[in-house]
Amino acid sequence: MTMEPNHRILFEPLKIGPKTTKNRFYQVPHCNGMGHRWPRTMAEMRGVKAEGGWGVVCTEECSIHPTSDLTPATLMRLWDDSDLPVHRLMVDKVHEHSALAGIQLVHNGQSVSNYLSRMPSIAPSPAPNETSNSTQARGMDKDDIKTLRRWFREAALRSREAGYDIVYVYAAHGIMTLLYQFLLKRFNHRTDEYGGSLENRVRLVREVLEDTKDAVGHDCAVAFRFAVDELMGEDGMHSAEAEDIVGSLAELPDLWDVNVADWGNDSLPSRFGNEGSQEDYVRFVKNLTTKPVVGVGRFTSPDTMVSQIKRGVLDLVGAARPSIADPFLPTKIEEGRSHEIRECIGCNMCTTGDYVAYPMRCTQNPTMGEEWRKGWHPERIPAATSENTVLVVGGGPAGLEAALALSNRGYPVTLAEAGEKLGGRVIRETALAPLRQWNRVADYRVNLLSTRANVSTFTQSAMTAQSVMELGHAHVAIATGSHWRTDFVGIHHRFAPEQLHSPMIVTPETIMAGKTPIGPVLIFDDDHYYLGSALAEQLAGNGVDVVLVTPAAEVAGWTHFTLEYEHIQVRLRELGVEIICNHGIAAVGDGFVDLACVFTEKTQRKDVATVVPVTSRISDDSLYHDLLAQKDAWSDHGIKSVNRIGDCYAPGTIAMAVYGGHEFARTLEAPVDPASLFRRENDFEAHKRWPEFPS
Amino acid sequence: MTMEPNHRILFEPLKIGPKTTKNRFYQVPHCNGMGHRWPRTMAEMRGVKAEGGWGVVCTEECSIHPTSDLTPATLMRLWDDSDLPVHRLMVDKVHEHSALAGIQLVHNGQSVSNYLSRMPSIAPSPAPNETSNSTQARGMDKDDIKTLRRWFREAALRSREAGYDIVYVYAAHGIMTLLYQFLLKRFNHRTDEYGGSLENRVRLVREVLEDTKDAVGHDCAVAFRFAVDELMGEDGMHSAEAEDIVGSLAELPDLWDVNVADWGNDSLPSRFGNEGSQEDYVRFVKNLTTKPVVGVGRFTSPDTMVSQIKRGVLDLVGAARPSIADPFLPTKIEEGRSHEIRECIGCNMCTTGDYVAYPMRCTQNPTMGEEWRKGWHPERIPAATSENTVLVVGGGPAGLEAALALSNRGYPVTLAEAGEKLGGRVIRETALAPLRQWNRVADYRVNLLSTRANVSTFTQSAMTAQSVMELGHAHVAIATGSHWRTDFVGIHHRFAPEQLHSPMIVTPETIMAGKTPIGPVLIFDDDHYYLGSALAEQLAGNGVDVVLVTPAAEVAGWTHFTLEYEHIQVRLRELGVEIICNHGIAAVGDGFVDLACVFTEKTQRKDVATVVPVTSRISDDSLYHDLLAQKDAWSDHGIKSVNRIGDCYAPGTIAMAVYGGHEFARTLEAPVDPASLFRRENDFEAHKRWPEFPS
Repeated sequence: MTMEPNHRILFEPLKIGPKTTKNRFYQVPHCNGMGHRWPRTMAEMRGVKAEGGWGVVCTEECSIHPTSDLTPATLMRLWDDSDLPVHRLMVDKVHEHSALAGIQLVHNGQSVSNYLSRMPSIAPSPAPNETSNSTQARGMDKDDIKTLRRWFREAALRSREAGYDIVYVYAAHGIMTLLYQFLLKRFNHRTDEYGGSLENRVRLVREVLEDTKDAVGHDCAVAFRFAVDELMGEDGMHSAEAEDIVGSLAELPDLWDVNVADWGNDSLPSRFGNEGSQEDYVRFVKNLTTKPVVGVGRFTSPDTMVSQIKRGVLDLVGAARPSIADPFLPTKIEEGRSHEIRECIGCNMCTTGDYVAYPMRCTQNPTMGEEWRKGWHPERIPAATSENTVLVVGGGPAGLEAALALSNRGYPVTLAEAGEKLGGRVIRETALAPLRQWNRVADYRVNLLSTRANVSTFTQSAMTAQSVMELGHAHVAIATGSHWRTDFVGIHHRFAPEQLHSPMIVTPETIMAGKTPIGPVLIFDDDHYYLGSALAEQLAGNGVDVVLVTPAAEVAGWTHFTLEYEHIQVRLRELGVEIICNHGIAAVGDGFVDLACVFTEKTQRKDVATVVPVTSRISDDSLYHDLLAQKDAWSDHGIKSVNRIGDCYAPGTIAMAVYGGHEFARTLEAPVDPASLFRRENDFEAHKRWPEFPS
Repeated sequence: MTMEPNHRILFEPLKIGPKTTKNRFYQVPHCNGMGHRWPRTMAEMRGVKAEGGWGVVCTEECSIHPTSDLTPATLMRLWDDSDLPVHRLMVDKVHEHSALAGIQLVHNGQSVSNYLSRMPSIAPSPAPNETSNSTQARGMDKDDIKTLRRWFREAALRSREAGYDIVYVYAAHGIMTLLYQFLLKRFNHRTDEYGGSLENRVRLVREVLEDTKDAVGHDCAVAFRFAVDELMGEDGMHSAEAEDIVGSLAELPDLWDVNVADWGNDSLPSRFGNEGSQEDYVRFVKNLTTKPVVGVGRFTSPDTMVSQIKRGVLDLVGAARPSIADPFLPTKIEEGRSHEIRECIGCNMCTTGDYVAYPMRCTQNPTMGEEWRKGWHPERIPAATSENTVLVVGGGPAGLEAALALSNRGYPVTLAEAGEKLGGRVIRETALAPLRQWNRVADYRVNLLSTRANVSTFTQSAMTAQSVMELGHAHVAIATGSHWRTDFVGIHHRFAPEQLHSPMIVTPETIMAGKTPIGPVLIFDDDHYYLGSALAEQLAGNGVDVVLVTPAAEVAGWTHFTLEYEHIQVRLRELGVEIICNHGIAAVGDGFVDLACVFTEKTQRKDVATVVPVTSRISDDSLYHDLLAQKDAWSDHGIKSVNRIGDCYAPGTIAMAVYGGHEFARTLEAPVDPASLFRRENDFEAHKRWPEFPS
């Protein structure tokens, strides 16, 4: 296939300072939970993106000094020369595919507590650290500012030494960056020439930009990442100030990388916004500078990208999440295969890697993070090692991914789904308005499967052990999913309440199926991710009175890590959902629920008509056990293996189901040595020499 | 000095299986936030304890398989041979001082989500993971149990290979350990021979004990760590079941290591219990076994230790926290210097290292975690490099520690305190009943300073720039502390509320000074550590009506990491404190406060008589700035340096103040190269070879 002619503009080269990018696809800096702790994992991940066609591939933020110590997060560091090898590894991987490598240098100022370095953090003005551990940053004096400028200069020089093409100055993402703290009135209360007027607050940014250009500007492009709006009115950065700032620094950087703050507004979850949601905020920038402008918007549609450029909104198509979901997005557009793009669903599973400090994963792309340690490539998969056929029972995310990856390997696949449509839990859950865009998990796979000659798909085809035996495929993957418990057993309740008036209870699946139960409805959320609040949002949106109860101190606690938390809290309150935290279920009676305080067991009664428990799930694995009971007869039917995958094996996230399905397909007839399940980055050598202390 | 005769029993050797410990001091397994990620830091810390006289020094828990993946925590691993070098390093450090090295092998079962390995976790019965991320453990079948036993055996063999003397089987700390999950009815719902009756639930533990003895029992002692009570009645482990378990396994292990669960009850914060608080729970064990028994109780008094042994409660004095606060506790008793023991204050600052995943610190022991990377030894410090004198202004935790460490170096020190007593914020804060035991921070230092010929201490001696100049000491450390803001500025409010009726406002210091303000009192806690709730507890305990308001979703959120959180929540509710979360201050009027929801800005009014803001602090640094203004005149008075330390430099925890004071003393006239502030464990080598994948 060939590129669609109107997409050609996306592949035009563009000058960025002394460098030239081969096309308009620009992977902006983004965290990944790998960083300095899992450097091979990180470097290979970046390299695969370069291979996939991104013209520019940047690091995540990279701390320039131990006073900006992000521990326990695993982000990059350039504290001294001992950090250079990690960077060189990444730069080499990116250059291998003729992409430009960018580095985002940062000092985090008051936002960090310096848990490893144990040094007091620094800020424009004295202020508590954001970490809520009763520690404060000290206000910087003039000498501190000079020192900080030196650190930035030294880091820029080290960046050049590592081979980077683009060096960032970074003032964005709210409290996260010290330079932004200087720009903002609420953090900068200085009375000297670095505080007060906008000109004064911009001074340090201007100096660091000038210093960086002076240090490396001949060899490297100097980018400026700047958040033009914090979406909090005049208490924060807003358009009037941002226009003055862009106007005054207009030609100083070689590139403007612009977005909105904070991170939860920048990487907006799909539950709260769509592709291109930043356009109205950033479009003014191009009017004020001749330098190229890059911006983001979870862009996955090439037509939208072309439109952004043609309408003069952006010069370069920035992407973080879309490049994670599909590292080969540019190549697919170039080859006229845009319909094969694995589009980001905006669930932000990726950002949990940074928050929790593990290598990021992606709901759509099961190879994310596995490029180095398991040798999984997003576009290549080992060919089948036999002509055996495979039966996949269940067309949810695990079954769909298994079928697709098996098809890619060349196995003949039969996919049997009991329901009317393929998609399983994805179909069910995306019937809830807040989760609608997640349907891409099913759509991507269903569309591709429909083109495959080696895949036979059957819906409305519930399987029994007998029918599986009769079909006689060599390998069977059982992906029959799971269902929500109705007895409240979960993390908080290990036993069902003694009084449980079952007619009151409605399952999450019933609501997903479009039923609106009689109100008031009490939802008990001991799951803590998205579903409890999504059900509440759906019902309240339909005019039902909803009480949302959780044994935790907050609803949807895990969504802190997906950047959905604040948005969810606001929306639930806007919809009038009553929220009761720190309570379990003491009893479910006829027309009421007694709640018990998790600390005191003191009870309170809520008069409700319906109760929806969202606590834990039970695997639908009876087919597996029925087959297991007949194991002796398998060989008579030519059956070599029967495996559970996805929620049928262990209920989890959609990301885990996709991953489990992919892993099954990858390792079928190519088993992994259990003694080396994945390559580990164990670099410790006991006898490595370190400098001794003077005694 | 010589040992007190009645302490001799503590130094008797004792046989543990095939091994003999030289004395009764037993550092039980404890986490440290260092582990496999900072192995030199960890090994040196363990080695210093062995040097300090502990007869046994154990690891933290050590995961045996990637299905028990504690990422992002940094605990030990024995997943394959590549983990051995880290263990050998530790074992060698411990053996250097003729102590025994123990390893606590663990599988964490359903308590972990396996963020790194991405494998579904395992459990006696299917159940959600404790991590609240909507993932579940799968129930183990018989093959899984066999495999698990093999993993334990292999890990025991690797432990022996690494040189360990004691190998643990570990079933304690509630949901944290898979073997305990098998013992407990609420997690084990199996219907086969591993579930149901107590005998069945014990089966796996017995098998793993037998397997371990079989594998390594000739060479290593096999210890069994078992929590005899979960303090939750018959829903959890309780005395009746525990007695049956101990009775039935009595002679199987070589050592019983017994405690209570969960961790917050085991490492009970001093706010909620005293030395020896586990005695009533564990004393039965010795009646049921002839094998040695070790237990813990934050023991720092040698007389208490002797009493435990003589009364037949314990054979070995177990310790985690006391060995952190004073690694040389045994040596000090042996040398008749028990009055020099730096006693643990039970603040649990140490446990934050495990929770947040950074190398642990200790409020009392500023060298903790710095043994390797900075070469700081708890009992040795480089001698003074001159005969210069030092003035320390301020006798709080920073000033006291600076004076003591400077005295240890041999510097002549003058300590000037403005108040009537030494101790600073420690004196103030420990006037609140919940924090009383923290006075040991001051007591330890004040007592030792009083014995020092090179230290002159003056109380009621407020200093001015002029008096400092007149004294003319070569070096001046300003440790004048900080005070709480009264304008609500902190993390949540970056500007003071517009309406602020100041007569309503009472400072935390006023309450610490013993004043009971008129109620109702509204405490606004934007600090999130201990003080807000301690003030509430103090006032409510005195009969005052208290409303505790916080902009966070929970009160005292950071105390999750110090194991105080649950205890605080229960106590506040028992005392009738009204708790309002997710609210900021909209206005403080005459007799009322208007609160604003942090999500919607919707306000509610509370009628109160007093408001106490606990938000952030202002350094009391005017003396420093006054001196700085006269810098030109310093040399005329012989002054070479003036530095701020502790809260005067940057308000923080008491631990940070002690650390800052110690660092000042260590580096005085021995400055650290700013390019290598501490040794880093950067082991990555870009060109290290790794196995390739078969293509």
